[in-house]
This record gives sequence, structure tokens and C-alpha cells, in this order.
Amino acid sequence: MFSSAMEKAEILVEALPYIKDFYGKRVVIKYGGAAMIDCELKKKVMQDIVLMKYVGMHPIVVHGGGPEINTLLTRLGIKSEFKNGLRITDAETMEVVEMVLGGKVNKEIVSGINAMGGKAIGLSGKDGNLLQATLAAADGSLGFVGAVQKVNAQVIETLIENGYIPVIAPIGVDEERQSYNINADLVAAAIAVELNADKLVLLTDVPGLLNDPQDPESLISILKVSQVQDYIGRGVIAGGMIPKVQCCMESVTGGVGRTHIIDGRIPHAILLEIFTREGVGTMVINE
Amino acid sequence: MFSSAMEKAEILVEALPYIKDFYGKRVVIKYGGAAMIDCELKKKVMQDIVLMKYVGMHPIVVHGGGPEINTLLTRLGIKSEFKNGLRITDAETMEVVEMVLGGKVNKEIVSGINAMGGKAIGLSGKDGNLLQATLAAADGSLGFVGAVQKVNAQVIETLIENGYIPVIAPIGVDEERQSYNINADLVAAAIAVELNADKLVLLTDVPGLLNDPQDPESLISILKVSQVQDYIGRGVIAGGMIPKVQCCMESVTGGVGRTHIIDGRIPHAILLEIFTREGVGTMVINE
Amino acid sequence: MFSSAMEKAEILVEALPYIKDFYGKRVVIKYGGAAMIDCELKKKVMQDIVLMKYVGMHPIVVHGGGPEINTLLTRLGIKSEFKNGLRITDAETMEVVEMVLGGKVNKEIVSGINAMGGKAIGLSGKDGNLLQATLAAADGSLGFVGAVQKVNAQVIETLIENGYIPVIAPIGVDEERQSYNINADLVAAAIAVELNADKLVLLTDVPGLLNDPQDPESLISILKVSQVQDYIGRGVIAGGMIPKVQCCMESVTGGVGRTHIIDGRIPHAILLEIFTREGVGTMVINE
Amino acid sequence: MFSSAMEKAEILVEALPYIKDFYGKRVVIKYGGAAMIDCELKKKVMQDIVLMKYVGMHPIVVHGGGPEINTLLTRLGIKSEFKNGLRITDAETMEVVEMVLGGKVNKEIVSGINAMGGKAIGLSGKDGNLLQATLAAADGSLGFVGAVQKVNAQVIETLIENGYIPVIAPIGVDEERQSYNINADLVAAAIAVELNADKLVLLTDVPGLLNDPQDPESLISILKVSQVQDYIGRGVIAGGMIPKVQCCMESVTGGVGRTHIIDGRIPHAILLEIFTREGVGTMVINE
Amino acid sequence: MFSSAMEKAEILVEALPYIKDFYGKRVVIKYGGAAMIDCELKKKVMQDIVLMKYVGMHPIVVHGGGPEINTLLTRLGIKSEFKNGLRITDAETMEVVEMVLGGKVNKEIVSGINAMGGKAIGLSGKDGNLLQATLAAADGSLGFVGAVQKVNAQVIETLIENGYIPVIAPIGVDEERQSYNINADLVAAAIAVELNADKLVLLTDVPGLLNDPQDPESLISILKVSQVQDYIGRGVIAGGMIPKVQCCMESVTGGVGRTHIIDGRIPHAILLEIFTREGVGTMVINE
Amino acid sequence: MFSSAMEKAEILVEALPYIKDFYGKRVVIKYGGAAMIDCELKKKVMQDIVLMKYVGMHPIVVHGGGPEINTLLTRLGIKSEFKNGLRITDAETMEVVEMVLGGKVNKEIVSGINAMGGKAIGLSGKDGNLLQATLAAADGSLGFVGAVQKVNAQVIETLIENGYIPVIAPIGVDEERQSYNINADLVAAAIAVELNADKLVLLTDVPGLLNDPQDPESLISILKVSQVQDYIGRGVIAGGMIPKVQCCMESVTGGVGRTHIIDGRIPHAILLEIFTREGVGTMVINE
Repeated sequence: MFSSAMEKAEILVEALPYIKDFYGKRVVIKYGGAAMIDCELKKKVMQDIVLMKYVGMHPIVVHGGGPEINTLLTRLGIKSEFKNGLRITDAETMEVVEMVLGGKVNKEIVSGINAMGGKAIGLSGKDGNLLQATLAAADGSLGFVGAVQKVNAQVIETLIENGYIPVIAPIGVDEERQSYNINADLVAAAIAVELNADKLVLLTDVPGLLNDPQDPESLISILKVSQVQDYIGRGVIAGGMIPKVQCCMESVTGGVGRTHIIDGRIPHAILLEIFTREGVGTMVINE
Repeated sequence: MFSSAMEKAEILVEALPYIKDFYGKRVVIKYGGAAMIDCELKKKVMQDIVLMKYVGMHPIVVHGGGPEINTLLTRLGIKSEFKNGLRITDAETMEVVEMVLGGKVNKEIVSGINAMGGKAIGLSGKDGNLLQATLAAADGSLGFVGAVQKVNAQVIETLIENGYIPVIAPIGVDEERQSYNINADLVAAAIAVELNADKLVLLTDVPGLLNDPQDPESLISILKVSQVQDYIGRGVIAGGMIPKVQCCMESVTGGVGRTHIIDGRIPHAILLEIFTREGVGTMVINE
Repeated sequence: MFSSAMEKAEILVEALPYIKDFYGKRVVIKYGGAAMIDCELKKKVMQDIVLMKYVGMHPIVVHGGGPEINTLLTRLGIKSEFKNGLRITDAETMEVVEMVLGGKVNKEIVSGINAMGGKAIGLSGKDGNLLQATLAAADGSLGFVGAVQKVNAQVIETLIENGYIPVIAPIGVDEERQSYNINADLVAAAIAVELNADKLVLLTDVPGLLNDPQDPESLISILKVSQVQDYIGRGVIAGGMIPKVQCCMESVTGGVGRTHIIDGRIPHAILLEIFTREGVGTMVINE
Repeated sequence: MFSSAMEKAEILVEALPYIKDFYGKRVVIKYGGAAMIDCELKKKVMQDIVLMKYVGMHPIVVHGGGPEINTLLTRLGIKSEFKNGLRITDAETMEVVEMVLGGKVNKEIVSGINAMGGKAIGLSGKDGNLLQATLAAADGSLGFVGAVQKVNAQVIETLIENGYIPVIAPIGVDEERQSYNINADLVAAAIAVELNADKLVLLTDVPGLLNDPQDPESLISILKVSQVQDYIGRGVIAGGMIPKVQCCMESVTGGVGRTHIIDGRIPHAILLEIFTREGVGTMVINE
Repeated sequence: MFSSAMEKAEILVEALPYIKDFYGKRVVIKYGGAAMIDCELKKKVMQDIVLMKYVGMHPIVVHGGGPEINTLLTRLGIKSEFKNGLRITDAETMEVVEMVLGGKVNKEIVSGINAMGGKAIGLSGKDGNLLQATLAAADGSLGFVGAVQKVNAQVIETLIENGYIPVIAPIGVDEERQSYNINADLVAAAIAVELNADKLVLLTDVPGLLNDPQDPESLISILKVSQVQDYIGRGVIAGGMIPKVQCCMESVTGGVGRTHIIDGRIPHAILLEIFTREGVGTMVINE
Repeated sequence: MFSSAMEKAEILVEALPYIKDFYGKRVVIKYGGAAMIDCELKKKVMQDIVLMKYVGMHPIVVHGGGPEINTLLTRLGIKSEFKNGLRITDAETMEVVEMVLGGKVNKEIVSGINAMGGKAIGLSGKDGNLLQATLAAADGSLGFVGAVQKVNAQVIETLIENGYIPVIAPIGVDEERQSYNINADLVAAAIAVELNADKLVLLTDVPGLLNDPQDPESLISILKVSQVQDYIGRGVIAGGMIPKVQCCMESVTGGVGRTHIIDGRIPHAILLEIFTREGVGTMVINE
């Protein structure tokens, strides 16, 4: 027994330099994909987040919720059209999106974190006017798909100073009280910039940016902002990876220390990113 | 013009003694019934709540959401059975209740208050483990209808001290992360007791307790706890009024200053209760 | 009864946008003229000030006291000479001025505010060295008529942060402990600038600035700083209105948001100015 | 030069144990008599008070003002009658008392302290409702001579925590805003009790309590509460000394550490009392 | 690589429940024996202490220093006599003890903790009068061996609230400024009681209390205060273990949660005690 | 008796302007020389320091300890070589220096200050990494004689804000945990600069800078930075005075208000410097 216990102690101690470096730092986590579906992965994400809080970091969680939205839309017989990968969101759809994200997904994450010993508070962009939004497509062609206009981070500051972990559903609101469906990556990036966060972590279902999409070994560990145009031109950054990389660029050029596209299918991917030298996935830096 | 403006000034000044008396006091408001459906009434409730906050009170809102739940259940083809007026809540129903209350109704109230200039934050009982619950019927015959076991009011304290208005959906949670559907009156009473509130106000669709239910002029303005048994025996307190009166009794015997059953169909009923000598509806006191 | 009560509620709610706009703002009020003599007007001014405090503003009162000074001078057989409308203040007169302003008028206002539920503290410029003064006429031709040299606003900050309403008698002091009789308008303007106030309100016995002094309907609602010279040239601004307008100019160019010359003979003139869109009297702005 | 400078240093150091003992302690000083008339004595009292503040004590000054009141009454041709040594105070007299105490004497002390480097704020019992009073003689036979009913010390606490020295004129007020003329010794004792002061010092024009009034060498250094009745019976405590001793008794039985009747005619009498082992005058203790 | 990294993440997460339980708790550690001599063990103790601080505990370290004292005494040719295992401490010896403990051992621990990323401050019992002491043997037969009379923990409170780790040399002082050599176990126990600590951990060179001293497998994991007399009678608690057990008894009966006698020769023994269910060594509890 | 007591009171009052000027100011005192050896002088220095703290200054003490180091080195048979007046410090010597300064001298000063009623805390440069050091002679020719690289004054700020007097032994440390022996004058100057102190006082065994070293009457009271080169050229500043003057220059050019080289052999020299107009010794100013 002892030898194994001692090994554990050694591992705790190995974490010390990372704990020191991140003490008091703000880390915005975009939570989505497989890590939100698989039960075991879910639990591990919650553990990672609570551990981060206890060792002195300030995690802020932004979540998506695609599959659950689809389920309820289907049950209600509401059909969705997509344009450039974005769901055209009419009023009826918007109502479903808001109920699923704010009433179900958000609260599940909150109670999951609390069950691990954290103190989570769920917010939508309406709470404290957190996310002021406007139409993403000014011509209305996307319906109530929104773009972040302004982040009122005061409520987040109040909560993190008092020991809470904010969990945020990506719903925006405008002055007419209209709700907006906003991409969670964009919300995470905007909040990271407003909070002057040290890190933005996007949990995805890919290993990161790959030189060769077929070869998981071809991971690009570090991506400089200055390389992005070239990589897009060469097709290395393509498809769904383009908006993710753009989020990262916006956040690092907006003052966030580092941003990471990591593989949420790996158990404890967040801890691995934070507590190991190599990290996981692709790190985007402002160079 | 002037004479009318001066009249307005006089009325503001008439409010001064009430503002003084309630300065810094906590008022829990159970928001429900007609005042949640009629557009004009809704807007007036929001105004009342924001005004209370600006003149120094701490309003805390607990809301129900019956009709909207019915609508979605119907659209999804889920049937409800009732027992003693309580909806038997199976897992499928619970999910709908939670989405509607937490994702739709709660956020509508939040954005309504914000639109009037307040800073509202929506909470369900899961946020910060606010409402720890257990089965209301231990034999499971009511499904996931819950009873409040413990109120963790810390998050409410944090929010009201920082200028926010908490808006609470009556969803409870237990240690297994099971959700519970709790009666909003009971939640309001439990929170009022835990917060040591000065006032609990239940917005209803009746003028208050009537001696003769057919005669709105027969309002009982003050009801003493010591009179309740007699009134129930004589059938004056009957039907849906019994649980409301019981909520009031529990809160005043639990230390809340005064509780009021008022008529939410009257515009600005809350302000009328607070800012006029006569008040409105029935006041329950601990005598 | 109800319809009237509800009307009252509506009026309270109409005040909400103004309450929001002025929340936490500092408003310096020069209190004088008829509003200090007529019993009913006096009471209404006190109510206005206390209401302002309760709805979140920080009123600071500066008062004059001319008639009461005359009364005591007359009883003591002390004669006054005037020069350019200023009382030449010898040592004997100065003593009377100080006793009347600091011992009588100031304390009457203080107890009046307290009787309405406020917490007022009377100050003269000697308290905490609030008003450092020097001779207004360097050649001594005005006696101890003073000019404000420096405002030490620390005691005002301490008091308003602790919920008090400062009431200030316009007595200055120099390093030799000599007392000075300073014009209350000038003191109000200097304090407003030092406190970076949002509003300076001068209560007068005229409707404001009139295009035709004989025609109260000819009120100039807005006066731009850039217009002042022209208006003086044309005789629109004349006589006692000249120093009042100069006070306003000094305060708005010194950073005070807006300044107002209003008619203190109108009941609740201060509330009317703050809580109605049209306001009352003449507003001087820095354009 | 050096030997004398070193002697000075030695004397500063000798004060150290006293400074330590009184650090953070509250000392209420009744200021009156010769020490308020003689210019040199006045200045020394101001120095003593400022020094106390700088070395960490919290001096609170309560003053009388008899001779100045007489002067103005005489100039105005108002006659006073006395009953048991108390001036029967009609409305006209009350007005004079208030102007002289609050407007003249109080502000002179304030500016005197400020000139020595302190930060004094003058208060009358009206400020912050500091001294709630009632008729001293219920039958009205003394006019508006008052008795202290309640001390609202909140403003004193605010001021002393912010580095100010409160200077208090013994004017009381009742709920009808009537002013009262209260004996300064009584006010000092009531404030000392309310503030839970460590010391009450009464500056008088006698050496203290003398066994033989003709023999200044017959000073009674320590007077126990238990001895008072006997001393009164034997005529040792007599005349004007009776109310002074009663003030002292009320304050020590009310929780004030020690009270002192000292000779204000001695320069720096306050410092001598505090910074020498023997003290000066008579100390009343609760035994 | 990944599988091993993931294993590490799992181990971090396993620590979470312990981190939660000890969050904000005070743990007094008596540091001595082999763990102070062996270089690798030393480093691990420092790591353990810094990790504790970073995950929210408040470690307070008390150290001994026997061997280093002997070395210097020998080099200076000073001989020691012992009585009941205590070094008779004359003035010359006392000087050496103080220099070695306060100047060498204490500062080595401080710089060791700092090198691991902590912020340590070394204190002796003289600093802030932390340890007021008296003669352990009133007849002077032990020389300046001291007993703790009073712990002035104010400086410890100040330091731990500001993020520091106090490291304390067991030197006491009396009012005559005489230094005392106090047993470090006793100092640790007295400080734990004064601080109302949750845990006292004594690092020793034995596995804990053994039923059979020859058999390390015979460890007594839990020792109740009620069993101690019996165990002493039966010789199970004997020799140097008696004073250690007495320290533990005094601290748990004085209000400290739990106390532990653990084997400092095991690497990371402190972490093992805190972060594993079984703990290590013998736990003394107040039953 | 009285006349003498009154004289004392006068002297206290004479100190008032100085107390005012230095209120809240930071004064770094280099303590060394005769004032550390003579018993009477020692006691007077402690009194001076405690008095400074009680009248509102923040004294910070840095001490040397030459003679005591020599004593122990001699007893241990360790020989020292000197180079340019600096002791070449090998590892063995360094250990002795650290034990004597940190374990003996520092704690004696601490307990001396505490005995006078202060609250002193002893620190070495290792505590809180206060003094980061490097080799004074890069070629190692001076051994572990150190130069200050960085002052981490955070712990000093924490202590002085909480009422403590920091007493600092001039031991530095580098990242490899190597100890360094640093000249106390240099440490005092570096700390004064980092703390933005108002005064640096060097206690020496000379009257100050003399025009003619043989004539104590030839004291140069004020030395301007601009004069230093010339004075060195002319030999007025020579020998051990050169590094002292350089310390003073570095501190005044680094932002310290004034620095003083004073004669520690004069009793209460620090008080004389602070509380008399003439001061003592030589003041170096940045002109």
C-alpha cells in the first residue's frame, strides 16, 4: 500500500509548480462536444474544474448544448435549416434553445460541479445583462443567431471573488429584451477578453490542429497568430476549425494570455493541459 | 402643467415615511397568478420590484410557472395526474418543469426586471445548492414533488449585498443530484425564514381572505395565527387558501415580520401594500 | 380609495428613471430666499432633501441667512453699509453673522432635516478647515467679506459615505483664525466643483432667467456658457442675476454636470427640477 | 544646548508608559471656566487635546459658555432669573444661548484646535440628533433647561474613527424640534457613559475637592463613590461641587473608567492629569 | 506518455475530497528528527508544507534542532548534563541554543520553504512576544529550560491571513527578557490550542505507537485519551513516547481536532497523513 | 513638584509640530556602533523607537553586529581576513555571521523593543525573501559578502500596517539558497528606497561629517549631493565615511526624503534628530 500512496504524494508535489503559476489566474473553459455527452468524461470535467478552484484558480465555464436542443426540437416537430453551419433560429426555435440551454444543460453542469464539492452558479446572458447581443446577420437571414456586442462582467467578478464558479449559457439579449442564440466559442472568447483571462480552453472533439487530418500524430502544438493566414491558405486550418482558430486569435490579440484547442475526449484533458509541461492539443499564441 | 407636477412631488414625499421604515429591509415576493400572465400587470410588478431596490429595500423574487409548464407538456403529449392539487411529477415531467421554469420563465422575469433598470440574477435551487430538497411524499406517490429540507442562502446574501435582485425558480435538488418540483409558496416561505426577512408577500388571484367568498367587501385585513384553526373549522379558510395561510403561518412563526396575501390582479399591488397605510389584502401576524 | 392609491403608485413608478439616473450622484443645493422664510416651503425643502438621500443621491446643503442677520444687528444697534450689494463686515458684524448663521440658521435646518427622517450634520467653514478664505477685497474695503481660497472636502466625504447630509454655513477661516463672511452662492459653487458634483441647484426668488423681466412666461430654460456675454451685453442678465450666473458658469466650467437657477417659491421646486423631464427654472450648461 | 535638548528627549520618553496605557482610549473632556477665558490657558488646552489625538487617544470635548451668553443677553437687554443656580431659560433666552454656544464658542474652540494641527468638528446636540432632551423640570419652572434623555453617539463614532476631534455644544433637542439648554457637565457624563469612555475629565476653577475649602493643601486625591454620602453630610462636598460630584458618580457607575475634577487654571492641567503618576485634582472611582 | 499523465490527473482528482475537507484549516506541524537531517526528506517536507498552503490550508511549523546544537556546543567545548532527558541549560548553553535555533535552523527551513515557492517567515518566541515562558523547574535545577505560560498568537494570525507560513523556533522569553529553551513538542501543542487548530502533527522517528516495540506491524492507529493511563500502566506507552502522547492529549483536550504522531522517515509523511484515508502513524483523539 | 511637571508638559507640547510632520511617515534606522554596546544607550534607542511608533511614525530597524561576530569567531578559532575594510566571508564564517546576527543580535533587539512596550518582529533577508542578494565581488574574492539585488518589501508592509516594528538582520539569500553577509548600511539604504521612506538615519560613532576631523565643532550640518565629489577630493569625506555618504546619496537620489549620519553615542540621538529644529549630525540632501 505505502509505495503506491507515496507515489501519489509525489504526483501531488509534481503539480506544485503549476499550481503556483496559475494561482489567482482566470481560466475560461468552453465546455462542449463529447465531454458533455459521455458520463465518465462529464464527471471528470467537473472534477477538473472543482480542483482548479480549490488550488486557487478562477475557472469560468461557458457551455454549448447542440444535441439536447435537437432532441427537443424533434420531439416538438420543429425543423431547423442551417446556413454556413449555423442554425437559422426563428422565434419558436429560440424559445426551445433557451429552455434547453438555460433550464436543462446549464443546471446539470451546475449540479454536477456542486456534487464534486464546488459552488457553481448558472447564468445566461440575461442575468445581470451579462451578454448584450445583436443580430449576427444584419439582414436577418440567420434569424436570432446573435453576435456579442458587450460583456457586462460585473456579476462574474462578484461571483468569483466570493468563491463561486460561474457556468454560462450562451444566450444573449438586446435592449428590446429579444433573446439571441450565440455560438459558445464566441461567447467564451468575448468573456475571456473582458475578464482579462490568462487562459481560454476550448474543449473539442479533435486532437487539436493537425497538419494531416488523417494523422493524429501530426499535431501542431503551437500556432502563432502570424501563421494563421498561411495555414488557412494551405487548407491546414479548414472547415469547423476556422471559427475555432478565429476565436482563439481574437482572444489572444484581445489580451488573453494563451488559448488552447484541446481534445475533450481525453479524460481530464483540462488538468493535463494545465498540469503538464507538454500540455495537450494546440496552443495559439500572439506572435 | 405645474399643478399636476406639484401633485406628483407631493405623492413622492408621502412615500417618504414608508421608504424610511423599509430601508435595508428584506422582502420576499412570491410572484405568480394573473400578475405573471397579463402583460401590463407583469410590467408593473417589475417596476414595483426595481423601485423597491432603488429606495433601499432588498426584494427577493420566487416565481411559479404553471400555465407555461402545461403548454409544453401538452405540446409534447405528456399527461399529468393531480393529487390534492399537486401535479404528480415523473422524470419526464420533471425535465419539462425544469426547462420551463429555469430556462424560460425565470429568464423572462430577469430580463423584465433588467429592462426596468434593475440588476436581476436568475437562480434555481441548484445554483449554489440553494434549495436542498427531499420527497414531499415519502412513499413516492407524488413523484418528484419536493419539500424544502435546507436553504443555503449564502448566494442570496452575496447577490443582494452587491446590488442584485435574486429571482428564484422553485426547483430543489438532493445529494444524488435528483431535481424536485417544489411549490413556490413553500419555497418563498422557507427563504423568507432563512433570510430573516421583514416581509413575505404572496401575489394571488384573490382579494385576500374573505369572510364571505362571494363578497369582496368582506375582506379580513388582519389574520392572527391564533385565529387560524377556528377559521379553518368554520370554513372561512378553505380550499387553495389553506396551504397559502399555512405558508404565512410558518414564516411568521419562523421569525418573518409580516406576511401578506394580496391580489396580484390589482396593478402595483406590491407598492400599494408597502406604501399605503391601509395596505391591500390580508396580513397574517404572529399573535 | 383604490383608484387614488393606484394613481399614487403610478407616480412613484414614473420617478424610477430619474431615481436611476441620479443614483449615487452628488447634488449641491444653495438654500436661501423665500424657501427659508415661509414655513410650508421650508418643510417641503426638508422633505425634498431627505427623499433625495433615501433614493440614493447625496444632497449637500449650503445656506445663507440674510434676514435673521439683519434682525440681530438691528436689535444690537449695529448699522451696516453695503457696497455693490455686499455688506461691509467689520469685526462686530462678523461676530453677529457667525452666531446667526452657525448657531441659529444652520441648526434649524439640521433639526428640520432630522425631523423628516434624515441624518443632518451642520458645519461651518471652520469645521475640519472646510473653507479656507481670504479677503474678497484685498484693500480691506469690504471688511471681512471673504473669497473661497480652498475647499477641504474630506469631512464632507466622510459624512456622506456614512449616510449623513451635510448642511454648511458660509463662514470661512484663514490661518490666523480670522472668520470671513462669504456669499453662499460662491460657497455652493466652490464645494460643487471640489466634490465633482453632478448638479448645483440655486434656490432663488425668481422664476429663473427671463427674456423680459416683466413676463414670467419668457423663461430661458437653457443658458449656454457661450451665450452669457451677449446676454449681459443686452441686459437680459442684469443686477443680482449676474453673480448667480457667474457662480453657475464657474461650476460648470469647473466640471459640475449641470447647474440650475430655480424658483424656491414653488413648493417642492427641487424635486420638480430633478424628477420631471421639463425641470424648472434656467439650466446653465457648459457649451 | 545639547544638555537641554537631551533633557527634553528624556521627558518625551518618560511619557511613553502613559501613551501606551491610553492608546486607543476615549477621553471625554468638559471644557469650561477660567481655561476658556484666559488666552494662554486656552491655547494650552488646545495643545493638550491635539497632542492626545496624535499619541493615539480619542479626546471628545464638551464645552459650556456662561460668560459669553451673559454678554449677549445684556447687550440685548434680556434679564435672567436663576433657580438653584440654573438659569431659567425662556424662548428668547434659549435662542441667545444657542447662537452663542453653537455659533460662537463652539466654532472658536474648533478653529483653535485646528490651528494647533488637529482636525476638529463642532457639533450641537441637534447634529445627527446627538442629544435627545426633555424638560429638566417637568413643571416647566426652569423653562427650556433640559435633561439628557438619549445620546445618539453614532456621529461621534464616525468622526473619531476618521481622525476628527468632536467638539460638542450642550444643546439638546426633542421630537418637536424644541431646543434645550443643558448643563455641560451632565452632557459630558452622558456622552462618556454612552461611548464607554475610559476617562471623564471636568475642567473647573477649583483645585479639586478640598477637606478644608480654605486650604488648597487639603486636596482629596481619591474619592470613592461609597464615601460621597458621608462627605455631603459633613459638608465637605457642598454648593457647586455637589452636581459635579454627581456627574462623576453617574459616569463611573455607568461604566466610565475614571473621572477627574481638575483645576483648569493650571496650565496643561489635562496633560498633567494624564501623563504624571500623581495626576492633579480629585479622582472619583467606583468603589 | 499520455496514459501516465492521465494517471497523474486521476491522482490529483483523488486528492480533491481531502482538499475540500481541509480548506481554510490550520495545521500545526512539529518538525524534527530524521526529516530534518536527511536532505531528500527535508526537501519533501518543504514541498508538503508549500502544497498544503497552496491548496488552502494554513500550515504552521514548529521546529527543534538538537543535533546542530550539540555540534556547536562541542566546538565551543561546552558540556551538557541531562536530567530526565532534558538538557540542563545554563546561560552559556542558552546563548548557543538561541543562536543555532533562531539564526541557523529556523532560517534554513524558511529558505527551504521559500525555494519551493512558499512565503515563510521565521519567528522565535521573542518576536511579538509570541511565547511567554517561565522556569520548567521552579527550583532552577534545569536551568533555563522553559514552560509555556502564554501564547500571543496575534502575529501568527496576521501572517497566515496575509499568505505567509510561520516557522517557529521554540525559544521563550519572560518579562525580564530572559530566554528559555522549550521543548518543541510542547510549543507546538500550546500553539495548536491557542490557534484552535484542526490538526497537530508530530514528525518523529518511530512508526507511531506500537503494541510491540519490536514489531512495526503492531501499530496502534487510533489512541483514545481514555486509554492512555491503561497503556502507560501496561508499558505500551513508555520512555520518550510518554511526553509525546501527553502533548497530544493536552492539545486534543484543549480543543484541537486531531493530533498525530507520524513517522517522519517516510517520504511525504505529512501529505500521506492528510491525503489518504488510512493516514499514517497514530492518531490521538479526545474520547 | 508642579513647576517641574508643568515644564514636562510644555516639552511634550513642543514636540507636537514634529509629531504632526512625521505622522504616518516611514523612518529607516541603521542601528550599530556604540549604541549597540553600551547598556544605557541601548535602552534609550529602544525607547526612542517605541516612542516613534506610538506617536504615529513607522520605524524600521536594520542592525549590524560586528563585535559579537568577532567574539564567536574567536571562540571557534576561525580567523578573518579583511579587504578594503570588508571581512572576506567563507562558508564557515558565513554560518557564524548568520547565527550571531539572526539568532542573537536580532532577537536581543526584538526583546528590547518589546520590553519597552513595542511589538517588534525580527527578520533576516531570508524571511519572505526580503533581501535577494548576489556576490559583491563577482570574482569571489570577498567570499559570500553580498550586494542587494532586490528588496521584497511586502512582509515589511504587512507588519507595519499591523502595528509591528520590523527589525532586520542584513543577511541576503540567492536562488540557490546561498546566504550572504551584507553591509548593514547598504541594506538600510536599499530598504529605505524600496519603502519610499521619508528618512534614513545612520547611527554611527562620529559626530557626523567634520570639516576638521580633530574638531568636533566643525560639523557640517547639511551636505548636498552636489558637493560630495568636491569634499571627497579635498579629503573631508574620507575612510569609513565614504561608504556611509554613498549610502546616503543612493537613498536620497532614490527618493528617500532626507538621510542623516548621526552620533549614536549621544543618548536619544534619534529623538534629538527628529524632535529638535537643529537636529544632530550631518543631513544629506538631494541638491
